[in-house]
Amino acid sequence: MSDTTPSESEGRPGVGRIEAFSDGVIAIIVTIMVLELHPPVSEGWDKLWTLWPVFLAYALSYAYVAIYWVNHHRLFSHATHVTNGLVWSNMLLLFALSLVPFSTSYLGEHHFERNAVWLYLATMLLPSLAYIWLQSVIRRTGTQDSRSAAYHRQTSRKGAFASAVYLSGIPLTQVSPWLGIACAALVALLWFLPKSPFDRLFDGRGAGQTRP
Amino acid sequence: MSDTTPSESEGRPGVGRIEAFSDGVIAIIVTIMVLELHPPVSEGWDKLWTLWPVFLAYALSYAYVAIYWVNHHRLFSHATHVTNGLVWSNMLLLFALSLVPFSTSYLGEHHFERNAVWLYLATMLLPSLAYIWLQSVIRRTGTQDSRSAAYHRQTSRKGAFASAVYLSGIPLTQVSPWLGIACAALVALLWFLPKSPFDRLFDGRGAGQTRP
Amino acid sequence: MSDTTPSESEGRPGVGRIEAFSDGVIAIIVTIMVLELHPPVSEGWDKLWTLWPVFLAYALSYAYVAIYWVNHHRLFSHATHVTNGLVWSNMLLLFALSLVPFSTSYLGEHHFERNAVWLYLATMLLPSLAYIWLQSVIRRTGTQDSRSAAYHRQTSRKGAFASAVYLSGIPLTQVSPWLGIACAALVALLWFLPKSPFDRLFDGRGAGQTRP
Amino acid sequence: MSDTTPSESEGRPGVGRIEAFSDGVIAIIVTIMVLELHPPVSEGWDKLWTLWPVFLAYALSYAYVAIYWVNHHRLFSHATHVTNGLVWSNMLLLFALSLVPFSTSYLGEHHFERNAVWLYLATMLLPSLAYIWLQSVIRRTGTQDSRSAAYHRQTSRKGAFASAVYLSGIPLTQVSPWLGIACAALVALLWFLPKSPFDRLFDGRGAGQTRP
Repeated sequence: MSDTTPSESEGRPGVGRIEAFSDGVIAIIVTIMVLELHPPVSEGWDKLWTLWPVFLAYALSYAYVAIYWVNHHRLFSHATHVTNGLVWSNMLLLFALSLVPFSTSYLGEHHFERNAVWLYLATMLLPSLAYIWLQSVIRRTGTQDSRSAAYHRQTSRKGAFASAVYLSGIPLTQVSPWLGIACAALVALLWFLPKSPFDRLFDGRGAGQTRP
Repeated sequence: MSDTTPSESEGRPGVGRIEAFSDGVIAIIVTIMVLELHPPVSEGWDKLWTLWPVFLAYALSYAYVAIYWVNHHRLFSHATHVTNGLVWSNMLLLFALSLVPFSTSYLGEHHFERNAVWLYLATMLLPSLAYIWLQSVIRRTGTQDSRSAAYHRQTSRKGAFASAVYLSGIPLTQVSPWLGIACAALVALLWFLPKSPFDRLFDGRGAGQTRP
Repeated sequence: MSDTTPSESEGRPGVGRIEAFSDGVIAIIVTIMVLELHPPVSEGWDKLWTLWPVFLAYALSYAYVAIYWVNHHRLFSHATHVTNGLVWSNMLLLFALSLVPFSTSYLGEHHFERNAVWLYLATMLLPSLAYIWLQSVIRRTGTQDSRSAAYHRQTSRKGAFASAVYLSGIPLTQVSPWLGIACAALVALLWFLPKSPFDRLFDGRGAGQTRP
Repeated sequence: MSDTTPSESEGRPGVGRIEAFSDGVIAIIVTIMVLELHPPVSEGWDKLWTLWPVFLAYALSYAYVAIYWVNHHRLFSHATHVTNGLVWSNMLLLFALSLVPFSTSYLGEHHFERNAVWLYLATMLLPSLAYIWLQSVIRRTGTQDSRSAAYHRQTSRKGAFASAVYLSGIPLTQVSPWLGIACAALVALLWFLPKSPFDRLFDGRGAGQTRP
């Protein structure tokens, strides 16, 4: 199988550099969010405790962006060469993700109020649209074998389900902002779940072979 | 053709590390601009709405720096070895690009007023001058085949045209600042346009062969 | 020996990209802490001198994160392929490390007072727990030879000792905050000590052979 | 000659990752300095003009850190394997460089006054000491051929001269702060000068052969 599996960047001119640039941008996005955790000027645990919404928003967004990095990492292993569509759909995805620190900070500073949750869910929908474009580009121009086909089929379905959960979070936020946040957390959980077929596939692909 | 196409960094000592450093700097430039999007302290959509000039300036500059990254990525695939000229023209380009967050933030905070647009257009001219130097270095010291020659001929022409559009934006800003912004947007559009001969060339190069 | 030594990323699909992403995140964490060193507005050496707690906190945390990078670098040389556990234990480690700038800034601004030292020691325990998970994943899924086994045995012991020192720093801070800081500094010193068996091992591994 | 020239990271286990981490840290250092260029709140060219000391300090420090990156890049091409000394002398160099944004910001905000220039020159001496250590490590443990020997001989001499110029800048600042800045600028100029024997050597090494 290792013949048909897309190998490292050596055989994929230019793809490695797009991955490196994306890694840089995502690493910065994930890290600058922590700058919003301003230490309180006066001492005491109760003052620290007032930071919990900012911390919770940071942790949620960290998980969110981390999941994108992991999916990006898996998806790009199916890319074989650089096209204009690949470059620009990837740039759009990074742009959409770069808005996450803003809505995270808004969510934390406004203590998970209704408007803040709406903005946050909307910001989560944006990169998922860019991701759909990116995946369709790699599906068309990347590796064409049964393994890649299965990967694209499964993750597209999972991605569509995630977008639907985000969307349904918007009316649910009207009922209670915490229902909207629950939708976001549910999607994160979905991607973390260890024993789905998707993850078994990934474990195998990473090793270059499925494990017994 | 893959014999004459410049391959990955393996055969180009030191070039890979210059690319990696440039990727890092450009990734940070592109991302710190979003820090200017300070969430408003008081709640409400109307308060969020007052951020539109800052957001618009960010989106424009993101597109602008992203285009530079893409062009840098393409240009460096023609570099074969490290020279003093390559290192320092690249450093000058990164310096010029590092001023973009400043003029972007000025543009957003001063709501696209005349002086802010002038400063922005001037900041856009600076990296284009450094890019001309960088390209002339790679043209002289990089791959010497018909493919590279065609690439350099086409992109130099496109770059000169872009600089001319920026320059003409300066008097046009006197008439209306939005005409100046339109010039900047026009240049961005030029590089996005999918079916120019340049882009067809790029699609081919990335794959290591032209597509039928 | 070079046959059994885990080589560079070429033979380890995907591992190289996780290393690159971790490098990016750790590089940013280590660098944004210096942003807390705000230059005083009024001139004079005495004004500069008031920055000493912020500077000391920065230097301590820099050493701390640098040690994590070095250990991460060594540990990942034993990883052979990407698994879900590897990706997420690494993400958790990076998340825990991303909280260091916050507690560092709190430590500096509150002049090493009792509560600040407690928070700092707690923040130092968090990544050590994530690191234990990460190491157990690589121990299970990575290189399986006597060299790796020795490496894991030695560093696990050292890591457990470090965690115990941090923990004992918590009651000691009740006596004096400086005893707590001394615990943190002791752990740093432990990892710097040049002639321990662990470091002799590392010198050898890096060269691909032990030196006479 | 390509047999004796240190090649890319493939044959140098772990060295590539130290370079990548250093690239990340230096890229961030060089870029966060631009954040000090706060756009003035009120409009007008005269308001922008008041930023000249901040801008000048940024440009000087950018050149300074860029020179370090270039020298680091050249020096590491002579490293062959990772040792404890290599890792920690490199970490100390990055720590010393991470203080540059602080003294740059102090220099800009205090308009090149005497104390600010002293602090700046002192900050410039720190990384040069760490660099001397780093170079001595690579001289001892890296490539051992006549080419590397010549490189180390020449750059050590140049580095010692640069440190002497910085040191002599300290009493000269007593006479006039601008004399101190002139010393710093002189060192930068020294490294930029294109036709020194050092640069001729570098041009050759980069290409893997001297040009006719």
